[in-house]
Amino acid sequence: MPTPLRYTSAQVLDTSRQVYLLDCGEGTQVRMQNFQVRMHAIRQIFITHLHGDHFFGLPGLLTSWALAGRQKPVDIFSPPGLEEIIDTTFRLASSHELPFPLNFHVFDPDQRVVIFEDDTFIVSTLPLLHRVPTAGFLFEEKPRPKNIIADQIAAYQIPFEDIPGIKAGADWQAPDGKTIPNEALTLPPEPLKKFAYCTDTAYSESLASWIQGVDVLYHEATFLEQEWARAAETGHSTVRQAAAIALAAGAKKLIIGHYSSRYRDLWAFLAEGREIFPRLELGYDGMQVHF
Amino acid sequence: MPTPLRYTSAQVLDTSRQVYLLDCGEGTQVRMQNFQVRMHAIRQIFITHLHGDHFFGLPGLLTSWALAGRQKPVDIFSPPGLEEIIDTTFRLASSHELPFPLNFHVFDPDQRVVIFEDDTFIVSTLPLLHRVPTAGFLFEEKPRPKNIIADQIAAYQIPFEDIPGIKAGADWQAPDGKTIPNEALTLPPEPLKKFAYCTDTAYSESLASWIQGVDVLYHEATFLEQEWARAAETGHSTVRQAAAIALAAGAKKLIIGHYSSRYRDLWAFLAEGREIFPRLELGYDGMQVHF
Repeated sequence: MPTPLRYTSAQVLDTSRQVYLLDCGEGTQVRMQNFQVRMHAIRQIFITHLHGDHFFGLPGLLTSWALAGRQKPVDIFSPPGLEEIIDTTFRLASSHELPFPLNFHVFDPDQRVVIFEDDTFIVSTLPLLHRVPTAGFLFEEKPRPKNIIADQIAAYQIPFEDIPGIKAGADWQAPDGKTIPNEALTLPPEPLKKFAYCTDTAYSESLASWIQGVDVLYHEATFLEQEWARAAETGHSTVRQAAAIALAAGAKKLIIGHYSSRYRDLWAFLAEGREIFPRLELGYDGMQVHF
Repeated sequence: MPTPLRYTSAQVLDTSRQVYLLDCGEGTQVRMQNFQVRMHAIRQIFITHLHGDHFFGLPGLLTSWALAGRQKPVDIFSPPGLEEIIDTTFRLASSHELPFPLNFHVFDPDQRVVIFEDDTFIVSTLPLLHRVPTAGFLFEEKPRPKNIIADQIAAYQIPFEDIPGIKAGADWQAPDGKTIPNEALTLPPEPLKKFAYCTDTAYSESLASWIQGVDVLYHEATFLEQEWARAAETGHSTVRQAAAIALAAGAKKLIIGHYSSRYRDLWAFLAEGREIFPRLELGYDGMQVHF
């Protein structure tokens, strides 16, 4: 249930080149305005499961894009059923066709599969344990070209057309026949980053193995430990369970959220979770995490 | 399009005995929390038309009521199509049945008909001129019993069982055969009040005739006069047109709203509208009107 300070689920992953939307609970479009998200740059939307707090904001967002004259396509990745909901809604409720292509990509949330790939990321599903079919998402950066050392390129007078090969890892053959090893010409690229978005789910041991070494793990923590029975019953996690997953996965950072609306004060979440995993942070509406 | 200060359409009419919801745009449930509306007391929901800014908040509100364990029925009055949208959404998206009865009452928005009646109000439709079938709503208070003058009842020693007849307007026959006229025993009830909710609509002369003497008229004013052509084209009104309706209807008060998101500063609406109808007020999120 939303409260004025804690709306339902939505996150964006912004690489400065692309903006990806993960879940889209009611009010997401207004929250994106509140927090100055570049909402018109979004191209792909990933929906974890068909509970309303994860997608009821979608019809409104699509409508606002239509009113703004959007023409760029929108791709929606979700478990089965969402297309029928959105199609029924727009067929009965709207006087116009959407002015942009809307493409649905259905995945089976019980399988570990790659569902999307672009220049930056490979996105795959993480089967979760919830009351309805649900998948988290793993964003893995793809290998990038090496970084050229400009001074060395100049010193050897390497011609422009040889640069792509060097960036890809090739040594360079000088006109005098001498071989310049790639390591002398390039710096290794930044380490490839991983981000995992895992909500809603009960404690799942497999999950930790699938997200080994993740840089940032977002994991739901609906309840405090005292409510562990209710967590199990409703397909949710306690904060200690979220922390245990982060620990087992060797995560660099854990962000928690999806707190039950029964909790106003969240500091107990911090205390309980950090006993197990100190690099835990409380997620909150409008939080920005740089990594 | 919603903005952080101006969410999409929703109003409540609160009589202290009942709370009625008129339209339910995205985010209505959070706005009701923001403004401390007694949302759990709502029994009837009236939807003007099937554009998203008037009903996309409905699935979320129904879900929150379900999570709160609501058992009281909900009655939704709307043009055709809404039931299929809501049914499709809950069939595909929810793991549970709603724990309360949800009754749909479909009306033809092109007809002037009574759609609801309870102890307090008769509610009828007001056919409007929009791009899709749309009706406003007229709430008319029903005649109430007269108010007893307690001192007079005591002075004449009128027995308890005669009170209902006197409240209904009867004279009283004293044991000595003398007739006490009703006017000596009662005060007239407060005048019956009328409220009209009219959105979305182009200028409609018929409307003014249907709401003669209305106490409070809410009428949309999407545009300033400068945009009159765009108003006509999109099935909306300028503020001058809204004011002209209020004047022709002899309204006691006009509240305007549904401003296009292109306008940030609304004072021009006040100036343009009050030239025609001085008892105009700017509607805003969270406004309370007592009457």
